[in-house]
Amino acid sequence: MAITVKPDQWQRIEGGITAAKGFRAAGVHCGVKSDRHDLALIVSDTLASAAAMFTTNAVKAAPVLVSQEKVQSGAAQAIIVNSGNANACTGERGLADAWEMGQLAATTLGIAEEFVLVASTGVIGIPLPMDAIRAGVRHLPAALDRDGAAAAEAILTTDAFPKTAAVQLQVKGKRVTIGGIAKGAGMIHPNMATTLCFLTTDASVPAPVLRGALRSAIDQSFNCISVDGDTSTNDTVFLLANGAAGASPLLEDDDEFARFTSALTALTTDLARMVVRDGEGASKLVSITLRGARTPGDARRAAQAVMTSPLVKTAIYGGEPNWGRVLAAVGRSGAAVASDVAEIWIGGVQVVRHGAGIPDELPAAAEAMKQPEYEIVVDLHLGEASFTGWTCDLNEGYVKINAGYMT
Amino acid sequence: MAITVKPDQWQRIEGGITAAKGFRAAGVHCGVKSDRHDLALIVSDTLASAAAMFTTNAVKAAPVLVSQEKVQSGAAQAIIVNSGNANACTGERGLADAWEMGQLAATTLGIAEEFVLVASTGVIGIPLPMDAIRAGVRHLPAALDRDGAAAAEAILTTDAFPKTAAVQLQVKGKRVTIGGIAKGAGMIHPNMATTLCFLTTDASVPAPVLRGALRSAIDQSFNCISVDGDTSTNDTVFLLANGAAGASPLLEDDDEFARFTSALTALTTDLARMVVRDGEGASKLVSITLRGARTPGDARRAAQAVMTSPLVKTAIYGGEPNWGRVLAAVGRSGAAVASDVAEIWIGGVQVVRHGAGIPDELPAAAEAMKQPEYEIVVDLHLGEASFTGWTCDLNEGYVKINAGYMT
Repeated sequence: MAITVKPDQWQRIEGGITAAKGFRAAGVHCGVKSDRHDLALIVSDTLASAAAMFTTNAVKAAPVLVSQEKVQSGAAQAIIVNSGNANACTGERGLADAWEMGQLAATTLGIAEEFVLVASTGVIGIPLPMDAIRAGVRHLPAALDRDGAAAAEAILTTDAFPKTAAVQLQVKGKRVTIGGIAKGAGMIHPNMATTLCFLTTDASVPAPVLRGALRSAIDQSFNCISVDGDTSTNDTVFLLANGAAGASPLLEDDDEFARFTSALTALTTDLARMVVRDGEGASKLVSITLRGARTPGDARRAAQAVMTSPLVKTAIYGGEPNWGRVLAAVGRSGAAVASDVAEIWIGGVQVVRHGAGIPDELPAAAEAMKQPEYEIVVDLHLGEASFTGWTCDLNEGYVKINAGYMT
Repeated sequence: MAITVKPDQWQRIEGGITAAKGFRAAGVHCGVKSDRHDLALIVSDTLASAAAMFTTNAVKAAPVLVSQEKVQSGAAQAIIVNSGNANACTGERGLADAWEMGQLAATTLGIAEEFVLVASTGVIGIPLPMDAIRAGVRHLPAALDRDGAAAAEAILTTDAFPKTAAVQLQVKGKRVTIGGIAKGAGMIHPNMATTLCFLTTDASVPAPVLRGALRSAIDQSFNCISVDGDTSTNDTVFLLANGAAGASPLLEDDDEFARFTSALTALTTDLARMVVRDGEGASKLVSITLRGARTPGDARRAAQAVMTSPLVKTAIYGGEPNWGRVLAAVGRSGAAVASDVAEIWIGGVQVVRHGAGIPDELPAAAEAMKQPEYEIVVDLHLGEASFTGWTCDLNEGYVKINAGYMT
């Protein structure tokens, strides 16, 4: 890689979970799913600092409970993940299975079990087919590579495409890389951490510092998206930092910490947007900006009401500039609204001024809605707070995927 | 009607908005919509006590604001309603139009303007075509009848069928009747009052007592349903009591008040269930019961998370007993949950015990889900609180209706 990163900037590069030095990954088919890759392993050459965020759903999957316990040490060396089965609502047996998954990976890699994190995604309530997992784990070490594409593939469920991204920046005079992979595409709604997302970096970052950077990045990216308003039982984000770039440790009061966090935020935003673009059935990626709200809570509440409204989402699908549904969603959100001062823009076209529609602009707004990506902006004119999130359309594809998910 | 009502009971009878004595109604086509009836009038022969409930959406339609002001007197004699246009987000002009609608009806009926309530439903953000309304109002008096079917028709938007119901009971030794009509079928989500619903009774009930009965009935019926989680800007329920049955006034400490409220609740529950059964695209009516919750708030929150989950609603459409989605929705609701004690029944078939699935029962549950109406029961085993609500499936029909609503 001949890319030169300016000392004060960061930039996107090709690559994903193995873009950072000292990480390898594998993806194989073990039989949880009928045909596609369904088992992934991510390994650092050396023990790494680890930070994580998990679902806030009160019903937590077994791998979430197990990894929450393991990651408390702030160190990890590997992540094992299966798709096709969430190992959620599976009781004592599910917990035993999640512990065993980590154990199997540790044994085959010859590392300590406590440093192997675990994640699962897929159907809820059915025990993990452990025979398939046991057989699959044996093929993982030989499949480890510096490419990472098979791992990106193996964590997917109803996703149409793999989600990978990477960035580079300078830290302490060294070029460091952060890369990651994520999966969608349903049960996607911001709450602490959404969906599965695995991140690696060759920067050297102590665990407490890493946690701060991760929380900040996820709050501005994965916590700002919604596909269907349903928060998963399995949401997990892991970030491993192995220091392989040779830079000295990054601390919170370093100038470079803000840059590292910005780069990490850009990376997770790229991945989060990919998750929305690939939302189940989605054909549109629409950013929703609420500004002029009285409080940050109002801005978030109002934006999320718009982002999750089935009526707004079907209007996006139909390409209809039905701003009344946008304003009605804001109105029911609990946010302070003075409907006679609100303004709305769709795809850059102003359709509401002083709370009233501008009928002549509707054709231009409808035209803008033909784009695969555009913005809806609501200005409440009541304060200074704002929030931007990303949503997709609701269409027959979502219904089709989810009406026949188990079978 | 030769029906005899036992003194201590109430019973359902045929009829709707004009089932009670002394009420007439009309429905005509005036041109807000292209073909179907779109203007309705409900009139009491004499001035009646009036109670109302309105949307809690912060963005309130003009007729809601106007009727909120008028109904404060506790008296009304007529209700004028148009469908096809919500007169919402229409600014000063919308308010003037809503006042004029009431005025036009008052003039043509020869009664005082202050006693004419107003409601609208339909597309948001487009000014009401007042020329059509003005022309239509002139035809209303001649169209008034004791049948009420045309009025029930004229308040509909995307509804597939009119919603009418009536009950009879004895009050103070006299047979009194309560009847009503309602409309769906989108922007349906419980919040104080949902959708449009008009109720009439020939009982004599002072306005403050009438308000208490109405609030109690609506809290247990319309406030327990959801089609799409979107609370409308126009939700309105009116209840008029004209005393035409000749019974002496009903007071809150009368023994019969509980029976009157029960009968009213049964009536509004019948109408609310019809609204869900006719939810946009809906093919299933499913009651969701959450019991064993720690608090009543938990029970309602958890039930509503299930009722509004797109994943649960698409599974209902697909006939898949995907109880994991039910438990995941409960888990994200904010209600206290111990997932290892929860139990779930679908259509009477227990599919979860001690938080774990019973795979052998899934075929029987899938079979039960083929019924047009069935129950999902979740027992959290954490307390005594319970809540029952009604929801419908989410399918391609909903998408089709709402992706092309404006055009």
